[in-house]
Amino acid sequence: MIKITLPDGSIKEFENGTTPLEVAKSISEGLARNVISAKFNDTVVETTTPLNTDGSLTLYTWNDEEGKKAFWHSSSHVMAQAIQDLYPGAKLTIGPAIENGFYYDVDFGEQKISDSDFKKIEDRMLEIARGKHDFKMRSVPKEEALGYYQRENNPFKVELIENLEDGTITFCDHDTFTDLCRGGHLPNTGLIKAVKVMSVAGAYWRGNEKNPQLTRVYGISFPKQKDLKEYLELLEEAKKRDHRKLGKELELFTFSQKVGQGLPLWLPKGAALRERLENFLKKAQKRAGYEMVVTPHIGHKELYVTSGHYEKYGEDSFQPIKTPNEGEEFLLKPMNCPHHCEIYNNGHWSYKDLPKRFAEFGTVYRYEQSGELHGLTRVRGFTQDDAHIFCTPDQLDSEFKKVIDLTLYVFNSLGFENFTAQVSLRDPENKTKYIGSDENWEKAENAIINAAKEKGLNYVIETGEAAFYGPKLDFMVKDALGRQWQLGTIQVDYNLPERFNLTYKGSDNEMHRPVMIHRAPFGSMERFVAILLEHTAGNFPLWLMPEQAIILSLSEKYEKYSQKVLTLLENDEIRALADNRSETIGKKIREAEVSKIPYMLIVGEQEAENGTVSVRKHGEGDLGSMTVEEFAQLIKKEVDSTLKAFEV
Amino acid sequence: MIKITLPDGSIKEFENGTTPLEVAKSISEGLARNVISAKFNDTVVETTTPLNTDGSLTLYTWNDEEGKKAFWHSSSHVMAQAIQDLYPGAKLTIGPAIENGFYYDVDFGEQKISDSDFKKIEDRMLEIARGKHDFKMRSVPKEEALGYYQRENNPFKVELIENLEDGTITFCDHDTFTDLCRGGHLPNTGLIKAVKVMSVAGAYWRGNEKNPQLTRVYGISFPKQKDLKEYLELLEEAKKRDHRKLGKELELFTFSQKVGQGLPLWLPKGAALRERLENFLKKAQKRAGYEMVVTPHIGHKELYVTSGHYEKYGEDSFQPIKTPNEGEEFLLKPMNCPHHCEIYNNGHWSYKDLPKRFAEFGTVYRYEQSGELHGLTRVRGFTQDDAHIFCTPDQLDSEFKKVIDLTLYVFNSLGFENFTAQVSLRDPENKTKYIGSDENWEKAENAIINAAKEKGLNYVIETGEAAFYGPKLDFMVKDALGRQWQLGTIQVDYNLPERFNLTYKGSDNEMHRPVMIHRAPFGSMERFVAILLEHTAGNFPLWLMPEQAIILSLSEKYEKYSQKVLTLLENDEIRALADNRSETIGKKIREAEVSKIPYMLIVGEQEAENGTVSVRKHGEGDLGSMTVEEFAQLIKKEVDSTLKAFEV
Repeated sequence: MIKITLPDGSIKEFENGTTPLEVAKSISEGLARNVISAKFNDTVVETTTPLNTDGSLTLYTWNDEEGKKAFWHSSSHVMAQAIQDLYPGAKLTIGPAIENGFYYDVDFGEQKISDSDFKKIEDRMLEIARGKHDFKMRSVPKEEALGYYQRENNPFKVELIENLEDGTITFCDHDTFTDLCRGGHLPNTGLIKAVKVMSVAGAYWRGNEKNPQLTRVYGISFPKQKDLKEYLELLEEAKKRDHRKLGKELELFTFSQKVGQGLPLWLPKGAALRERLENFLKKAQKRAGYEMVVTPHIGHKELYVTSGHYEKYGEDSFQPIKTPNEGEEFLLKPMNCPHHCEIYNNGHWSYKDLPKRFAEFGTVYRYEQSGELHGLTRVRGFTQDDAHIFCTPDQLDSEFKKVIDLTLYVFNSLGFENFTAQVSLRDPENKTKYIGSDENWEKAENAIINAAKEKGLNYVIETGEAAFYGPKLDFMVKDALGRQWQLGTIQVDYNLPERFNLTYKGSDNEMHRPVMIHRAPFGSMERFVAILLEHTAGNFPLWLMPEQAIILSLSEKYEKYSQKVLTLLENDEIRALADNRSETIGKKIREAEVSKIPYMLIVGEQEAENGTVSVRKHGEGDLGSMTVEEFAQLIKKEVDSTLKAFEV
Repeated sequence: MIKITLPDGSIKEFENGTTPLEVAKSISEGLARNVISAKFNDTVVETTTPLNTDGSLTLYTWNDEEGKKAFWHSSSHVMAQAIQDLYPGAKLTIGPAIENGFYYDVDFGEQKISDSDFKKIEDRMLEIARGKHDFKMRSVPKEEALGYYQRENNPFKVELIENLEDGTITFCDHDTFTDLCRGGHLPNTGLIKAVKVMSVAGAYWRGNEKNPQLTRVYGISFPKQKDLKEYLELLEEAKKRDHRKLGKELELFTFSQKVGQGLPLWLPKGAALRERLENFLKKAQKRAGYEMVVTPHIGHKELYVTSGHYEKYGEDSFQPIKTPNEGEEFLLKPMNCPHHCEIYNNGHWSYKDLPKRFAEFGTVYRYEQSGELHGLTRVRGFTQDDAHIFCTPDQLDSEFKKVIDLTLYVFNSLGFENFTAQVSLRDPENKTKYIGSDENWEKAENAIINAAKEKGLNYVIETGEAAFYGPKLDFMVKDALGRQWQLGTIQVDYNLPERFNLTYKGSDNEMHRPVMIHRAPFGSMERFVAILLEHTAGNFPLWLMPEQAIILSLSEKYEKYSQKVLTLLENDEIRALADNRSETIGKKIREAEVSKIPYMLIVGEQEAENGTVSVRKHGEGDLGSMTVEEFAQLIKKEVDSTLKAFEV
């Protein structure tokens, strides 16, 4: 008999050789039907692997990340079989599960594959799945494994096996198909009820462009047809909300190859949107006692040697800027903190002057490989809504809490209600990765955890995820499609104050070291605008909309009145425009709906006579007739109620 | 007889051999007393040179730049004589007139000279001056000139003469002193009534650091003792207003060697001041139809190759930023225009869409040698209040006028009332220096001159001063001390539209090339703030002041009421602070006066009871008692009246 410990801590006895699937059955038939994969003593095992020792067992279903991984990994075997059946001679290489689905890199030789082939692959996959073939792992001696793939004429698998140690090599069989595989499968192919081949792309063998080019076939699979349908709908919606697409449609930003990839150019409407966001945060920061500063976008190399950034990032980033003479070297600033430390060092501070809170919308530059760039979410230059708080150790706790308050105010005012926090601590096994003393790290980590607890944040602790200079708290928001995004960050730093020799005079008249907090509620203006676009699909909160209202005249006769309404609204600082074209009102309303302008003000004879407007709200319809003054009040009230509701 | 044409166009006959001084006498005795130097047919002559042909004669007095130049050049001869008398063996090199006074570079050998020696040099100079010695020019054969200075044991003058052609060499004698000299002197030393040796500094022979080091002795001289006194007072006042000194006192900006010289760090009060200036211009620009954009601070090298900037500035500027791989090269942006051209190119424009006016507070970086750096007026990174107007050729005239209107609004609102304009045209003798066709240059130059005329600007035309890409109009302001500063610039550009292939669809449905205007009313935020500091000595217009009011409590008892007043003012967006220290009210008032805060609000028992404040205005005194509301109205009225007075 063996003793199996389950995740809830309970221990059950089973006969030696019992499989995870049988353990599941002993718990409930329902669980057994849904079990996809298992982990035994921290090792992935098959659900059909006989267990021969005492140990801890975790069973995974579709609802677990590990379950999905096994599901998709197994599906890639099925797709590989389908491809081999349909494209004789196609050579398989590797086929892992990924975040959404799986892929297989295939050498199709002379054969071509395109979108129109996807259907037949899917059909063959479903046919195989319906056969309910068991996935069966077996150990294979290296000699035998090599022989198998030499006979198959597959140099890729041969190369993989050559790098493996004899005695560790396993094959997985199902139906007539065999693959080199480390394991982690479904019990059988029958669980796969829905499949979709998503796309094909080029890929190099082992990611090296000097190697042969392969075709990467992306697929996804689900235990229910309904899940696939929902996933495809979500994809469709996400495509509509893609910030690159919306950014173009709403004329917010663009890129130019000549200026350089990954360097956004903000068009007038985007720059105005960005400025409104900045002004919103500036106001909140002013209330919270921050002071704005302005620093240059370059710094002497020495500055980053002092800060430690050069040692850490120097070689992988934009290279130094040399001067034509005098032998100086500057770096594009990758972070604003060294500059703010120098601003702190410009003054002589007493404990009574602290905290000093220096804020800057500071544009920084970091090199990213061109293949990694993506719209506004992965760029080479971005503007952080950065601030650094210099405080006494005693003030750290309360300052950290104030920063959390400010961050929550920002998220709530912008309609992000669903967020979690991640506390990133250092990896205690690998302390050399980090700068600073043990004692300081402990102080800092405790301050973050205390604040997160007291503010009632929904947080998880991730060990080993801290920045090299200090632990941090990151906010993750869930958008309208349920996708997770990393947003604002708050970091405690005991290290830069050492490196820059920052001091203040304490009440004891001695000089002390201040503590630093780095924080950026938006993260960066670029990334935040991207996420906001994908979250709202361009339907920003009213206070942020590029245009809050559009005046639609019933005919050209009312252009003069329309112009008068526009002037009145502008005087009230309401962003509006007028559509006085000689088009039907129906067409004007449809176009205004598409452009997402929140309010439409229809003006015709009656309105011109009475000095009123007929108000329609985007997506909601008619609100009736009111005076321009009443409408202005309505807008102001709506804006104020959003912004004031979450004020701290 | 010879015919002499005078500047007023009149022609007079004189005997052959008449001197300019005699011509002056024939006009008036007063003029003759004041004549300092003369120009005959575009050549500088002595006032005692006999004129032997017909020609045009200009006579200069102290009021002319040329007159001052001759005065100071002559004075440097006198200083050289004094130095030779007092420091036997000191070797003279060169001694020109400069913007304010003159200098002489001297090899003092083993002898030392310091501030305490200045008095005896001045005394000896005045002694020589009082001798009323005539300055007499004479031609000297090269052999003889070399012999003279070889005997004097002066290798510097020998080297100078060796590089001159025989027949062109002249000496100037006065009293017992002789110097190698090209001419342009006072009639005699007696006109020099006041002298001052200002300072000494190190200098290399011929400016080359490999050559022997010399001592540069700076001096200045005047025709009246009163002029010297006024000059020294002005210098004293300028020292007090030095923006580097005020910037430190008012805590506006600082520099850090670690961040890099010439890269200003804006402290909280400076950043806030700068933001107010930016917001002021943003508002005015919005009214004038500008749209803000945001672009990165770097650009691909290709961008500047396209624009022509790389060819022109590449080697003398900050060197390219290489990427760690992919072989890309970026440049710190020296100008915003290429980026704005790419923003223009992002759209498809019809003539109905133009003009497009893209504005950006764009920070640019240009390398300057460290020795050239000076506070905020000569830096390596600065933020231009830049905008580029893209218009049709037909719109050029009216757009140019609108830009002039905006520029004048800016100057007037900031208290610069005394300004002139300079129209810089290309040098028609040296057309290869400039990019673009003859026809386009003519169109552009005419547009500027027309606009300057129509707007009634006080302008001068400078040929050969245009930028390489187009002609321009620069504004020069005179500050409170009468010093000239170059401020905003407006440039027409037909060239970048060609280089970036900018187009719009005309009413003829064909594609056309737009015209571009570059403009920056402030010039740069750094330079403008520096000039504003020196102009106002920190007494900014009320709307711009870092603090508009300070509440001074009569004792700590009234701290609570003081705090209430502060909150009321902040609610009214008045920038105020409170001084509730337990100091005497006299001391508080004195300190507030020093810190230049425009309004002091004194609060004590009576004020707390009545809900009032006792108002004192900086530099003016008591304004009596009023309610907080009344005071807020007073501030608002003063601000509005400044800003609205010049609105266009």
